[in-house]
This record gives sequence, C-alpha cells and structure tokens, in this order.
Amino acid sequence: MIAMDGTPRAVILLSGGLDSATALRMAHNQGYELYALSFRYGQRHSHELTCAAQLAAQLPDVTHRILDLDLTVFGGSALTADIPVPKDGVGDGIPVTYVPARNTVFLSLSLSWAEALGAHDIFVGVNAVDYSGYPDCRPQYIEAFETLANLATRDGVEGRRFRIHAPLIHLTKGQIIAQGLALGVDYGLTTSCYDPDEQGRGCGLCDACRLRLAGFAEAGAADPARYVPNASPGA
Amino acid sequence: MIAMDGTPRAVILLSGGLDSATALRMAHNQGYELYALSFRYGQRHSHELTCAAQLAAQLPDVTHRILDLDLTVFGGSALTADIPVPKDGVGDGIPVTYVPARNTVFLSLSLSWAEALGAHDIFVGVNAVDYSGYPDCRPQYIEAFETLANLATRDGVEGRRFRIHAPLIHLTKGQIIAQGLALGVDYGLTTSCYDPDEQGRGCGLCDACRLRLAGFAEAGAADPARYVPNASPGA
Repeated sequence: MIAMDGTPRAVILLSGGLDSATALRMAHNQGYELYALSFRYGQRHSHELTCAAQLAAQLPDVTHRILDLDLTVFGGSALTADIPVPKDGVGDGIPVTYVPARNTVFLSLSLSWAEALGAHDIFVGVNAVDYSGYPDCRPQYIEAFETLANLATRDGVEGRRFRIHAPLIHLTKGQIIAQGLALGVDYGLTTSCYDPDEQGRGCGLCDACRLRLAGFAEAGAADPARYVPNASPGA
Repeated sequence: MIAMDGTPRAVILLSGGLDSATALRMAHNQGYELYALSFRYGQRHSHELTCAAQLAAQLPDVTHRILDLDLTVFGGSALTADIPVPKDGVGDGIPVTYVPARNTVFLSLSLSWAEALGAHDIFVGVNAVDYSGYPDCRPQYIEAFETLANLATRDGVEGRRFRIHAPLIHLTKGQIIAQGLALGVDYGLTTSCYDPDEQGRGCGLCDACRLRLAGFAEAGAADPARYVPNASPGA
C-alpha cells in the first residue's frame, strides 16, 4: 500500500543496536514511511529499548512500537535465561547468546504488522560478516524467509510480494559504521553490549562489544558508546 | 533431545479447536512427550484457551503453556480488530477472518520453544481441504516453514533437523472427526466458532461453524458442541 501522500511504507526491526540503527537510516533515506518494531522479550537489559525509542524519535515519519513477548518462558539462551554471557573472545561455533529462532519470531511479527499496514518491504539489520555466527543472520536464511513470507500471506499469494531487505548483510562492521556516519547515524544512541551495567555502559568484553570496538577501529572512528572503566579489550 | 526416560519430545500448537485437538491425540499416540502451546493473542474470545487447557489436561505427559502476544496492536483481521465476522457462508477467496501471518508467528514461537527443549518435531493441525482458504494452511507453506526452520536454528544447521508434522493437512473435516473419535477425542471440549457467545456457544453461521457442522454430518456423528438456539444453518 502506498500512503495517501504516495509514500511507500516499510517495517523495520529496530533493536537499538548499531546495525539496526544504520539500517533504519538507510531505509529512511530510501523514502519509506517507516514502522519500527522492537521487542520486550525478556532480554537482560531494557537499555536497548530506550536506545531504539530515541533512534526512532530522531527521524520524521517513523512510528515505533514495542511488543511484549516473553521468550524467557522458553529459555535456552544466555540472553534470556540464567546462563553467563561469555567474555573471553569471539569463538567459532554458535555461542550461548544465540536465542532459539529469535529472528524468525521477530521477522514473523514484522510480516504480520507489514501485511496489516499494507507494507511490502521489511528491513532487518542482520550482518553475516562481523557477527556472532547466528544461523538466522545468513543470506540463505533471509532468502528462505522471503520465500515463506510470500507463501504465508494473503498479499503474497495474491501477487503483492513481500521483500526482505538486509542492506548490511555483506558489509564488514567497519563498512557499516562508515556508511552510518556518512548518513548521520548518532552511534551514541546505540547499544551493543550483551551485558551492560545499570547505566547502560558496555562491558567491553562480550562478543558484541568486541565486534563493535573492532568495527570502529576499522572505520577509523571513535566509538561514542560508554564502557565500564578498565573493561575494554583494546579492540 | 530424548528425555531422560527415552521419550522423544514434540511441540504442538493447540488452539482449542477441533483440528488441533485431533492432532494432539495423534501425536500423543505416537509416543511423544508433548509441549502444547497456545496464544492469548487478542482473539475475540478466551473460550478457546479454556478448551485448550482442558484438552491438554486430559492426557498424561502434556505440558501446556499459554503465551501472551498482543496481535491486536497490528490489527488487520476480523478476529483481532473491530471488523464483523462474516456469517453468510464459506466463500472462495481469503476471508476477513484471516489474521496476517498468524501461523508463521505461531510456528516460529513453537520452533523457539522446541529448540530450547531439545525437541525436533513440531505438530500443527492445519488442514487444506475443508478450511477457510488461509494461505498458511497449505502443504507448500508447511514445507517452506520446515526449510526455514532448518536454516534458522543452531540445531538445524548442526544436522539435528526439525520436522513440521501436519497430519490433518490432506484430510476432509469428516475424516478428521472420524479419526479423532476413534482415538477418543472429546470434541465437547473443543470450540470452532469465530464469534461464540458469552457461554462459549457457537453461532452456527460463521465459516468455522459451517465447516465443523458439515464435518460431523460427513462423519455421521453428532456434534457435542453447544450452539446458540435457532442459529444452525442445518449444516
């Protein structure tokens, strides 16, 4: 559906992290009227939801919703259950911070909202280069979800096809940050840490902090995020 | 994962309707330790959740969870928004009772729970014969979801494949009911109506009531569900 003034609508998953903040700005620059979706899913800290709300509020034509969805009922992840977040460096396999089927759950809900809105474009800031190895961040996963979306829905079946946009998927973290800075993303409003302190300061040691700090180093830029004192691994 | 006593686990979507009640009994007869999932998603009536809980409680080895997920935030359906439920007969296209991407949302959450439980079998009582024409009840949709599930998850990627079981998908409503009766399903504990009254009695006129009543007629059995007086279309 095109809005009354001719602006196409899109739904975007907005976590409050660096990647989705960049994807938000990219989608906005493409002229979409945006509907940003965040989840209160039982994550360890609500700081990322504060970040998401601030990022959405910075732009005109962005409607932001936070949906309550208690994934702690299921457990199975260091992000939603009482399992320690690893801080000894980015490893090879899929880490314990993996939340079972999280992106499938979130994309499914974004699809539901999109169809109800008459939107056919869904943006997601997944990245398959500098990432934690989650299976639901890979290109073949995104393609499979797009296929599913067009079989699952009235609009898909009737030829109004959904497209899943993952504009960061092949970029390095440094490239994401460089592009975001060029577009005016305020990375001081983003959070990446899996285990921030009460003030929202990063631990500097979890996979997400390490990937973020390495990305800023690659981009030759200073990370405006706050970290707990003496915690940085020195990127 | 096999439970400590060797019993395999499975997750099943349990709506409290006729179809999922039958699938529950089928899965139970196959020897699974079952985890039944229902949703308080903003449906017009909570009677179906009462039915789901009673159906689960009838069987040993069934753990039942009701997850809160407010799809009314998105709207777009006669089942979740202020749109009248049609009562003039089952038509051709996809009706307004279609909830955008509902089965994708529900299957995604069942996948999340399954992976957290170490279960790799997911049962869903969708049917593509005597149904309301919803796109997310068709075989090609179920196949696409299974493909997605195995790309989306740690277990799928590591070779512990998920299977989506839709044992009713090719059956007529009459065949479903006949098989369910043979297995001992108490259809008096199921509800089908899209718009029941305060006592949970069916309207007899919506698509779901019409399909149910025609199914009992086909099976040559009496429908133990209660209907509001003088509302039956006579199947």
